[in-house]
Amino acid sequence: MTTREDCQRQDLSDPLAALRDQFAIPADVVYLDGNSLGALPKATAARVQQVIEREWGTQQIRSWNSAGWIEWPHRIGDKIARLVGADAGELVVADGTSVNVFKALSAALELVRSSADTAPRRVILSERGNFPTDLYIAESVARERGCELRLVDAAGVAAQLTADVAVLLLTHVNYRDGRMHDMAALNRAAHAAGALVVWDLAHSAGAVPVDLTAGNSDAAADFAVGCGYKFLNGGPGAPAFLWAHPKHTARMDTRQMGQPLSGWFGHAAPFEFTPEFRPAGGITRFQCGTPPILSLAALDCGVDTLLAADALGGMRALRRKSLALTDLFIALVEAHCGDDGFVLQTPRDANARGSQVSFSRGEGAYAIMQALIARNVIGDFRAPDVLRFGVTPLYTRYVDIWDAVAMLRQVMASGEWRDARFSLRATVT
Amino acid sequence: MTTREDCQRQDLSDPLAALRDQFAIPADVVYLDGNSLGALPKATAARVQQVIEREWGTQQIRSWNSAGWIEWPHRIGDKIARLVGADAGELVVADGTSVNVFKALSAALELVRSSADTAPRRVILSERGNFPTDLYIAESVARERGCELRLVDAAGVAAQLTADVAVLLLTHVNYRDGRMHDMAALNRAAHAAGALVVWDLAHSAGAVPVDLTAGNSDAAADFAVGCGYKFLNGGPGAPAFLWAHPKHTARMDTRQMGQPLSGWFGHAAPFEFTPEFRPAGGITRFQCGTPPILSLAALDCGVDTLLAADALGGMRALRRKSLALTDLFIALVEAHCGDDGFVLQTPRDANARGSQVSFSRGEGAYAIMQALIARNVIGDFRAPDVLRFGVTPLYTRYVDIWDAVAMLRQVMASGEWRDARFSLRATVT
Repeated sequence: MTTREDCQRQDLSDPLAALRDQFAIPADVVYLDGNSLGALPKATAARVQQVIEREWGTQQIRSWNSAGWIEWPHRIGDKIARLVGADAGELVVADGTSVNVFKALSAALELVRSSADTAPRRVILSERGNFPTDLYIAESVARERGCELRLVDAAGVAAQLTADVAVLLLTHVNYRDGRMHDMAALNRAAHAAGALVVWDLAHSAGAVPVDLTAGNSDAAADFAVGCGYKFLNGGPGAPAFLWAHPKHTARMDTRQMGQPLSGWFGHAAPFEFTPEFRPAGGITRFQCGTPPILSLAALDCGVDTLLAADALGGMRALRRKSLALTDLFIALVEAHCGDDGFVLQTPRDANARGSQVSFSRGEGAYAIMQALIARNVIGDFRAPDVLRFGVTPLYTRYVDIWDAVAMLRQVMASGEWRDARFSLRATVT
Repeated sequence: MTTREDCQRQDLSDPLAALRDQFAIPADVVYLDGNSLGALPKATAARVQQVIEREWGTQQIRSWNSAGWIEWPHRIGDKIARLVGADAGELVVADGTSVNVFKALSAALELVRSSADTAPRRVILSERGNFPTDLYIAESVARERGCELRLVDAAGVAAQLTADVAVLLLTHVNYRDGRMHDMAALNRAAHAAGALVVWDLAHSAGAVPVDLTAGNSDAAADFAVGCGYKFLNGGPGAPAFLWAHPKHTARMDTRQMGQPLSGWFGHAAPFEFTPEFRPAGGITRFQCGTPPILSLAALDCGVDTLLAADALGGMRALRRKSLALTDLFIALVEAHCGDDGFVLQTPRDANARGSQVSFSRGEGAYAIMQALIARNVIGDFRAPDVLRFGVTPLYTRYVDIWDAVAMLRQVMASGEWRDARFSLRATVT
């Protein structure tokens, strides 16, 4: 039986323990919501301050050149590329995840339609439990382009790759239950079926190893988007990113294809101010408007907290710790709260698990989470009845897992979660 | 003949002079580029710091409720509404200007097509000299929707409102020459011709009085978008805004119409996580992804610098000063640099002028601007041959205008602009 002292010992011998020092986390809080909003890196406040006062305040408009602002979407994109198995120059930071899903999905459909393939492909295939904003955007793209959005259960995706599927749109790690798809296998299956794949890496980038280019094999993905404010620690509403396989951007370059959000930052020469759009080559065409510099500065600091793990084994080492923490969480809840009605939603199989643990509990899930938050254990609730605990190996300690479960046990044993104040729904739950 | 002392006296008697104290502007700089990037408000650094350290760092995910983050796009939108003649609840801060042009144009076309009007309307009418990103987006929307983008000269817009025009897309104040359209007259003409109007207020919001709702008359606009980083002083790449006339959002509500970027923040109940999109009512459906909180905090401070003018006469008083400053600029250049080849591009008619002065000069325009910038007079160059000087009545002083023209005179008299280093093009010009 694991004890709190065991957890403390694990922290002491954890080779990644020092990475936590990069973050400003209140001492009295167990923060298990980094999959919703990553914790604040200590470097961020000073860096954003510098950008505001020195670059914007003193150098003003000149900073687009002198501070290199114009290149930041690519400079930070190159850093994120290292975290998701992509090469420099293939990934750009721009807009939000939803907008980037729109771009990637539109471009993928255009590529499929322009291919020599004779099959009439008009289906966007996705998973019923995919993160809603991806489905909302897909619904809209399907309507606009006369396609059908077909939703299936997660387990049935591979079997549903029929000859009418143009694009498979999936989130790699499910936001609700933390289940992780086998990206390489699904890429291969989709390609064998003549479809392209768009991945949403919102719960993957910075959380689990991702290999988008897969050694340039048939297991490579086609497009990917991801979120800056979860495991990349970029701050609330941070800009998102978009990656396209270089073979696709090369084909787009040759065929003069684009994506519908053809803003001036995706132009080959924005400062020529020509009335006709002429797309930039490569990934740049997926930029749209003027980059949000203050937010990019914060995202840069967030991404750096992950690159700091490079010398310690990088994403592979973070993954090992993440699995150890989620394994521990599952074991402790089952040992200490085994009779409290929690049903594990996250796969026990480590290969099928992201960096979170979710439990459903028919009654009271919302109130139990609120009671836990009142005790400074911060997880979150996801409708209809899921308690969700994100684990961020950069800063989550073994002892945090122990303390979270100990608090959960107290919340259940005391029955305090039945207090009426805990069932009052807040705007954002 | 105006002297520098005259300008100093005008500053001393300027009732708006104290508004400049809101900004951190280097003492040795004459900043005439607020139409590209507004100057830094003094309040911004501390406010963003507070959001980072206290709201994000300490309250973490809870700040979506406790700090009201979730409402910021509306809260700040309501402030901007006051600057552009719109009512609270009609305007939202979201995404960038280009993305918002895409949303507004798409929604306007859908409204026209769903109307009882029997004329086949498939033309998006715009001005050849419109800001390129608006044209690029319109080109894309036209291609996607089987429409034609028809570009005409600025002066010919009203005459080109033929029966096949669905939407008129214009920028109120032209970015290059500073010419301002008569918004009410064009709205009336477009409505009489059965078309809707989408206005880009990038160089208007916070620069000139705008009356979008026009007392709810037929002179009201239909849609408007605008930029946060120019006269709203929101910082580099600040979020943009979008307004729709409430009669249109009401009709969209009734008919279940939308815009293609249907992200989760435009959903009626995003935290129910339902797989089907159900649009929020009113302007909220024009939100897409998670709001960028750090950038919104900075934009909030920027907008506040304009609201601070309320007690001093608001936009009308700012407009009076703006015109006095641009009149002075024109007069001084003509008096002191009359033989230097500058050709005024901005209308002399105050009613047709925004808050900038532009001169073309066939040869050397770029190098002359670089030489001026080297002397700390910051304007900018716009292809092919325009020197552009933005005037921001919140912080531009009469003496700044004098000093800028005095420097221009020296640059011309000395011939220093012919130095080779000034003709080297930077990335962003």
